Amino acid sequence: MLIEEMKHHECSAMLARATVARLACAVDNQPYVVPIHIDFADGFVYSFSTMGQKIQWMRLNPLVCLEIEEFTSPKQWATLVVFGQYEELPDKPEYTYPRSMAERLFQRHPMWWEPASVPLAGHPHRSPILFRIVVARMSGRRAEPDVSDVREIPTSASNQRRPRWLERTLSRLLRRQS
Amino acid sequence: MLIEEMKHHECSAMLARATVARLACAVDNQPYVVPIHIDFADGFVYSFSTMGQKIQWMRLNPLVCLEIEEFTSPKQWATLVVFGQYEELPDKPEYTYPRSMAERLFQRHPMWWEPASVPLAGHPHRSPILFRIVVARMSGRRAEPDVSDVREIPTSASNQRRPRWLERTLSRLLRRQS
Repeated sequence: MLIEEMKHHECSAMLARATVARLACAVDNQPYVVPIHIDFADGFVYSFSTMGQKIQWMRLNPLVCLEIEEFTSPKQWATLVVFGQYEELPDKPEYTYPRSMAERLFQRHPMWWEPASVPLAGHPHRSPILFRIVVARMSGRRAEPDVSDVREIPTSASNQRRPRWLERTLSRLLRRQS
Repeated sequence: MLIEEMKHHECSAMLARATVARLACAVDNQPYVVPIHIDFADGFVYSFSTMGQKIQWMRLNPLVCLEIEEFTSPKQWATLVVFGQYEELPDKPEYTYPRSMAERLFQRHPMWWEPASVPLAGHPHRSPILFRIVVARMSGRRAEPDVSDVREIPTSASNQRRPRWLERTLSRLLRRQS
């Protein structure tokens, strides 16, 4: 397996493809991390949430970090880390443009509003809060299989344990042949 | 979709099943979040990493947060958030027991050492640092489809957009019938 730093344009492209990220915020140096739906455009990551711990914490401290993953196999994956600043988009005239931008982006996903607006069982419904993350910097790492991974495929004489992805591929091939 | 808080024993069971988590740490109220491999046993989450930003930051501030996901469909998923404290397990006699515990747990996964020990292209190889997170508290949420999701299945007369999981199921069924 070969792990490489991603170039800036590769990071931007990966962020543009992402629909889910993990958002980390912190208060009094206690970090907190939760999954959120995202949409990226023009240097901003747009999202929404009902009022709760993450909104309260980001209002107290706007410094945040996002993590995004693309997983193909244990030897082929990419991870992206984005540092940025929380900016709330309240329903006020001066936020009309970014709010309409956010809503246009969210419409691309069916039922986009559901995970962040369905109340917890027994709790009242609350309308979601729109916000965006102003991207300050990002970095990414990408893993690819290399020559040593090809050599690793075990022979029947070897007692080396096969990785799970290889087991799955082999069992699929065997099923097809029988 | 119905979202519910998970009970403590459900959170523990989910943590015990997990092999990957997102670890958030923070220094000077700047959060940082990255994926790690984990193994949970007896109130501790065991992991390992080469020397880098997350180890440096957790040495400065041991307060951390882990996030774990189980995703079946957009309407059936669970997320777990774990708060805890970083504890390094250096190669010293007083850490023999937790280090052997960690190594025994890691052996359950083929090539467990690889993602955290393969150096970045062009960087020298460094041996991984073992650590554990002392779990302080955790909470989880689980979503299940409810009656309204059944009612949502569109008729041919309806122009409502079908969620992606339903599209996939329908196209699989149609392929099987043809």
